[in-house]
Amino acid sequence: MPPTTQELAAFCKKKGFIYPSSEIYGGMAGFYDYGHLGTKLKHNFENLWRKYFLGLNDNYFEIDAATIMPEKVFEASGHLKNFIDPLVKCSKCDYHERADHLLARILNKRFEGLAPGEYTKLIQKNKIHCPQCKSALQPVSIHSLMFPVQLGTGAQTAYPRGETAQSAFVNFKLQYELQRKKLPLGLAIIGKAYRNEISPRNFVLRQREFTQAELQIFFNPATINEHPDFQSIKDVKLRTLLVEDRSKNKVVERTAQELLKAGLPKFYVYHLAKIQEFYLAQLRIPAEKFRLYQLNDQEKAFYNKYHFDLEIDLQEHGFTEVGGLHYRTDHDLSGHQKISKQNMEVMEEGSTQRFIPHVLELSFGVDRHLYALLDLAYHDDKQRGNVVLKLPAQLAPFYAAVFPLVKNKEEVAKAAEEVYKSLKNSSVCFYDDGGSVGRRYARADEIGVRYCITIDFDTLNDHAVTIRDRETTKQERVLISRLADRLRELSRSF
Amino acid sequence: MPPTTQELAAFCKKKGFIYPSSEIYGGMAGFYDYGHLGTKLKHNFENLWRKYFLGLNDNYFEIDAATIMPEKVFEASGHLKNFIDPLVKCSKCDYHERADHLLARILNKRFEGLAPGEYTKLIQKNKIHCPQCKSALQPVSIHSLMFPVQLGTGAQTAYPRGETAQSAFVNFKLQYELQRKKLPLGLAIIGKAYRNEISPRNFVLRQREFTQAELQIFFNPATINEHPDFQSIKDVKLRTLLVEDRSKNKVVERTAQELLKAGLPKFYVYHLAKIQEFYLAQLRIPAEKFRLYQLNDQEKAFYNKYHFDLEIDLQEHGFTEVGGLHYRTDHDLSGHQKISKQNMEVMEEGSTQRFIPHVLELSFGVDRHLYALLDLAYHDDKQRGNVVLKLPAQLAPFYAAVFPLVKNKEEVAKAAEEVYKSLKNSSVCFYDDGGSVGRRYARADEIGVRYCITIDFDTLNDHAVTIRDRETTKQERVLISRLADRLRELSRSF
Repeated sequence: MPPTTQELAAFCKKKGFIYPSSEIYGGMAGFYDYGHLGTKLKHNFENLWRKYFLGLNDNYFEIDAATIMPEKVFEASGHLKNFIDPLVKCSKCDYHERADHLLARILNKRFEGLAPGEYTKLIQKNKIHCPQCKSALQPVSIHSLMFPVQLGTGAQTAYPRGETAQSAFVNFKLQYELQRKKLPLGLAIIGKAYRNEISPRNFVLRQREFTQAELQIFFNPATINEHPDFQSIKDVKLRTLLVEDRSKNKVVERTAQELLKAGLPKFYVYHLAKIQEFYLAQLRIPAEKFRLYQLNDQEKAFYNKYHFDLEIDLQEHGFTEVGGLHYRTDHDLSGHQKISKQNMEVMEEGSTQRFIPHVLELSFGVDRHLYALLDLAYHDDKQRGNVVLKLPAQLAPFYAAVFPLVKNKEEVAKAAEEVYKSLKNSSVCFYDDGGSVGRRYARADEIGVRYCITIDFDTLNDHAVTIRDRETTKQERVLISRLADRLRELSRSF
Repeated sequence: MPPTTQELAAFCKKKGFIYPSSEIYGGMAGFYDYGHLGTKLKHNFENLWRKYFLGLNDNYFEIDAATIMPEKVFEASGHLKNFIDPLVKCSKCDYHERADHLLARILNKRFEGLAPGEYTKLIQKNKIHCPQCKSALQPVSIHSLMFPVQLGTGAQTAYPRGETAQSAFVNFKLQYELQRKKLPLGLAIIGKAYRNEISPRNFVLRQREFTQAELQIFFNPATINEHPDFQSIKDVKLRTLLVEDRSKNKVVERTAQELLKAGLPKFYVYHLAKIQEFYLAQLRIPAEKFRLYQLNDQEKAFYNKYHFDLEIDLQEHGFTEVGGLHYRTDHDLSGHQKISKQNMEVMEEGSTQRFIPHVLELSFGVDRHLYALLDLAYHDDKQRGNVVLKLPAQLAPFYAAVFPLVKNKEEVAKAAEEVYKSLKNSSVCFYDDGGSVGRRYARADEIGVRYCITIDFDTLNDHAVTIRDRETTKQERVLISRLADRLRELSRSF
């Protein structure tokens, strides 16, 4: 059975991957903690992301910035004005909700991007009352998603950033000078962002505090129809759902070359292809579970010229946005130039033309990716009687586990500990001597361990151990002296 | 010349290690960003820390928790009540400062831990006026170091955590159940903490947003006089400055064994020794620049039974706290038990005794360590005419750099690019063909690159390159086919 969000959340808590934050105090809506296994999974994802996307170009760099930023940053970015949700409250009880969510639920239709007055009219027209106590609803008001904080003795208002992107934008000019004035320049940030959601929900899919992995690529807009490596990806078939495909609601495979004909620029399409490669070849998402979903003009932010959501097909929710490729034009740098009065123009070596670089944003919600990876990996194996978490080995918290088969026999335990110690430096593994071997296999399956290595009585004579594969439960016997090599060998096959 | 804080900050900005956050808006006091090189240095430090401290025991784990926590957490921890500074303000102008800092500066004496009324009396008694405009000062008030934020539609007050430790404490009970109920249990967190300092200062030494690396070890207090590995460190000489050494103000080397006689428990001393090993063997801090500084009863927090600061001798500031080893007893878990009404007691396997575990906290300020590492590494080399950053190779952002000696000769550049590509997977390196080779050596020195590899005309015939050592500027010629091995060999020698 595929897991519902609730089942997945329960499983994640039971195994210590992810669970509500400050739970001894009843938790806080929209805040989650990562336990030991969740932290390892998160780090593995982040390191894979880092290696892949920073590897795209020697001029892409990672920076790490303060999460709290001054008010002017969000004035320039438009967050203070536009980063808002319509809020509807009851006139009597404590009911409150996003007005568009209330309307969508009751009228079974999507209502996004309207003004508060329009929502109020719709509520009145449809005679909608408080869903909790049936009293009248208050007029719809504006709720800001930004949390203000007061710095020092109160003279300065600042905000935890609503997206990591702004840190990259305010760092751009200095980094450009430092990195020898070359475009495209990429600035990656993996870090926290904060949004005061009215109704956080769906486990880690909509949180108030979350981790983003974003790469902002600053480039010369005159070169948008070029990419030096386009040849290498021109025949890659991209799993796209363009605006024109909406009526059929079906993914169409188009080569990169074909997408150029559909009006998308080379620089954009190249990154679409590289992103798809990340999902299919690195994260090992099955192709049919992945798509590139084009937003139409009503849906995308007004400053995005091109906007595809990166979507993964989740068990309960269907295709869900986990990231996006956003051509933000010069919206952000121009905004910061205007408010900060700092010149954001650059002049490339050998050129006399001054211009404000444009930005291509590759944005990934880390927590949403972990949700998707766990959701796809979760297999309730009826035959084994336990969940098998089929995580790709490069993402799983542990690659191997070492078990002494007979717990109370000192020589076996000693041999097992030696195997564990010798393996520890080359493989991410753990030692487990608790309970029956069946129980230990089950526990290892549940947290995605790819290989279990058992040491038994025979080991004392033949100096060999048994390797058991999570995927097949098939076992093979390997000399201890060959074990590390064999595990390396196996890792190369997937 | 050793660097002052100001010089170090200027250097860090010039090279892109660390610089004021949101600087295009004039910066925000107490907030810094890490550029590309600073981020690499920070990650190297964090990974070294992680590997070393999690390696101390198979039952030590890393977790990753939300940075914003509910109000009750800080009621239980005492932060709301005790995490305060005395604030003095001018009655006329915008002057404001910590009252103890004002008094210390003017009366040249330390004034810590007094009540607001006592500070006010001291100010009046000593006829102290506003240092800016000479007007009368207002009575000293209490300034909380916690930043409140309002969640949702304003019904819930929460706070960015003042220390990562609280996340470990509220996670303890669940992690204990998950990790098969074994003590000691270690929970490590590397993450952000936030303090609304009245006067942030000294570059990254006192910030409003900073990164901590902390390990909370939960243990049975009945075993405090035991440690299974104590034998292995009993003769290690620890560089201590005990309370009794204060009058001489001199570090005394004492073996771990001797510290037991001074009344410290084995479990505590074992970790003091392991911490010192981290500084000397891992971070390569020169022994004479490190000390373990014991706090007296007035200085340490009331809940700390034993408290040593971990101190590094900085150029401008002398010995400076960069971390601490705190025996927090059951203060935190008991506090959370009381406020959350959740039972924090545990019962170890094979025992019938229930008890609240005690906590030994190993606390490290990541930014302060980076300051110290940069401060110690900074050498203004008059002979070379540039700064040489003598960072240990395992911490430096780059291990190697690859230079084509003659920029405009295509074959040389091609050969250099090939060397770079082949090296990229095994070594952290970069390619630089900008400016004269002398300039490139200088730039590499300044960011701590240990080896520069140059490719020249001869390379085209002898298939060899030159390796130049940052420390000595000595060069050696190595076959390209031997290069990766040779760099590995060299890395083993330090």
